[in-house]
Amino acid sequence: MRQVAILGIGQTVIDEHWDKSIRDLAVEAAIAALQDAGRETAGGVFVGNMMSGIVNAQNNLGPLIADWAGVRGGDALKVDAACGSGGAALRSGLMAVASGELDSALVIGVEKMTDRPMREVTAALATAADADYEVDMGVSFVGLNALIMRRYMHEYGWKHADFAPFAINAHANAVHNPFARLHHTNPLEDFEKSLMVATPINLLDASPVGDGAAAALLVPAESLRGGTRVLVAGSASATDTIAIHDRPEGLFLSAGHKSAREAYKQAGIGPGDIDLFELHDAFTIISALSLEACGFADRGKGVQLGLDGEIGPTGRVPVATRGGLKARGHPVGATGMYQVVEVVQQLRGECGPTQVPEARLGMAQNIGGSGATIVTHILKKA
Amino acid sequence: MRQVAILGIGQTVIDEHWDKSIRDLAVEAAIAALQDAGRETAGGVFVGNMMSGIVNAQNNLGPLIADWAGVRGGDALKVDAACGSGGAALRSGLMAVASGELDSALVIGVEKMTDRPMREVTAALATAADADYEVDMGVSFVGLNALIMRRYMHEYGWKHADFAPFAINAHANAVHNPFARLHHTNPLEDFEKSLMVATPINLLDASPVGDGAAAALLVPAESLRGGTRVLVAGSASATDTIAIHDRPEGLFLSAGHKSAREAYKQAGIGPGDIDLFELHDAFTIISALSLEACGFADRGKGVQLGLDGEIGPTGRVPVATRGGLKARGHPVGATGMYQVVEVVQQLRGECGPTQVPEARLGMAQNIGGSGATIVTHILKKA
Repeated sequence: MRQVAILGIGQTVIDEHWDKSIRDLAVEAAIAALQDAGRETAGGVFVGNMMSGIVNAQNNLGPLIADWAGVRGGDALKVDAACGSGGAALRSGLMAVASGELDSALVIGVEKMTDRPMREVTAALATAADADYEVDMGVSFVGLNALIMRRYMHEYGWKHADFAPFAINAHANAVHNPFARLHHTNPLEDFEKSLMVATPINLLDASPVGDGAAAALLVPAESLRGGTRVLVAGSASATDTIAIHDRPEGLFLSAGHKSAREAYKQAGIGPGDIDLFELHDAFTIISALSLEACGFADRGKGVQLGLDGEIGPTGRVPVATRGGLKARGHPVGATGMYQVVEVVQQLRGECGPTQVPEARLGMAQNIGGSGATIVTHILKKA
Repeated sequence: MRQVAILGIGQTVIDEHWDKSIRDLAVEAAIAALQDAGRETAGGVFVGNMMSGIVNAQNNLGPLIADWAGVRGGDALKVDAACGSGGAALRSGLMAVASGELDSALVIGVEKMTDRPMREVTAALATAADADYEVDMGVSFVGLNALIMRRYMHEYGWKHADFAPFAINAHANAVHNPFARLHHTNPLEDFEKSLMVATPINLLDASPVGDGAAAALLVPAESLRGGTRVLVAGSASATDTIAIHDRPEGLFLSAGHKSAREAYKQAGIGPGDIDLFELHDAFTIISALSLEACGFADRGKGVQLGLDGEIGPTGRVPVATRGGLKARGHPVGATGMYQVVEVVQQLRGECGPTQVPEARLGMAQNIGGSGATIVTHILKKA
């Protein structure tokens, strides 16, 4: 296998883009990534997207985006792994370049969610779970996460307010990210006063949906001469049961643990070497579980890292350094690529007030469903 | 890149499976492929599917099927390239094994289309085309193909009846395929009397939808000892514009030409060496265009091969040897994998009355949209 580098990145602002179609967003990010890389085209197009068939009446995004981004000719397909689609698409592009099959791959995560009434989007999000044994029983996707959070609080004795630091950190960082959807900060007193979504998850526990696209151009590392190079040092995907009730341990992201362990092994490092961690904070509870699964905290102790002030850009485990899903926004199929683009920005030292000092190793972890598919990437500055 | 072999295959009967869910179908084919290979699990699961989000309220098919087929742990994702999803998923699994990233990959094409009213399925099929510039103008997917067929007849002077041999051959072959949806033969007089769908495409020009799944287990060729081996000798994907009106030549499947040329090159052969060709006969017109794009006939002459009696199992270019999309049935995202499974059956000599004598090299070509994504695989008996 050849080593792969990320040569270019691009992203759109996350917002309700009433004036842009899904193709417009994807093409904007794709062309930005090509320009950033100084390239005009790529050997293939890999699109991460979850719900375009349902909410945009548009499947076949591969050739659509390849066509409109002027990257016609080679592979072009869409990868769906629910909210983990971006990370899974990156991995598909990576294997195409690593195998020698393609000399470059343009990977784009895109989602356009705000064109439809929110009840339809809620139904579309629920297709990430088990349709027959979870959703048809009446539970929504946020409802599943609420069950997990309630159980975690019960099991380990945390209060709801203990989760506040995850939201506060994310909002504080997003203020400095021009691509983020939300730019307001949230003092602690707001956290408890926020509107309830699905108890105990309130509005400040939950990430906002949005429209957006993020992209990266992958090339063989051997093709690059000089300059700062961002290499893919680790890449792994793992699965758990699709339904939460089938898991032996409902509070442990086993697929997160497995894929992180494999990625660490490939990179020859451990969690202590990671300078920043773009985790999948769709809900505050998931931040805690991700930190535990990846070895940054013991079981039931992920929340403590936030309370100890260790998750900010200069803390021991910086997370959501550009705002995370919570405040940058969560256009579901695009999120995994936003995370990777942000890690690249950190390794390049482009993050201004939320720059992690001397960042050399960054990790991105993208989750599909309630922990069913988890994809972990470790990037390295070389 | 490592050479890859197909060690096991499995498939379900194509039908209206009222008593089986999309997971049931996928798991049935997956387990059949594992059993055929004598394996219990695989390193990753790659699912080809187009419309599960729309018609089954179920995305995230990767971990769902991995979970229920007992293949938990590694990669698990869904690939969408519209009706070309099966072929595109095969290619994703192939790259994972060829790159050395996985030691085996279970690729499953699945579609369950008959649970919803046909108007909804028609709308879902149309998501393969350009939503903004084709579908929103009012054209359905069969309507787009009807435009192509009408233009072809006008341009090259063929009558509608000249397309009959494609349907007759497919139906004659499907009679001997226990997995096919349709088991009745169609004499020539029926062809012209058949109900009109979208002029000039009538019911016998068009393939029936259906529910079904087909699967294959991929392993490194070097891991096999002795016995008949089926190797992937060529694999390529190419794209064209998504909308037909943007193509310089609307009657030429340029992505089919490009991907076949690349697959021939990889296999070190030409069209004359192919013993059978499982083409994408969603409509009779597409059979003609595929034969032309892949070098079996000159432009505008594809129809002649049928009229000359050259497309049957003992003809010069056997096509649809197990019934093709036309009579085996076309569960859209599964079709590409049915084609590959059927080529393997031919190379193994398991096709009874429709066995192509001494078949050694077989080709499968899978089309997404009206020629937007075309994936070509060449398999070789070694």
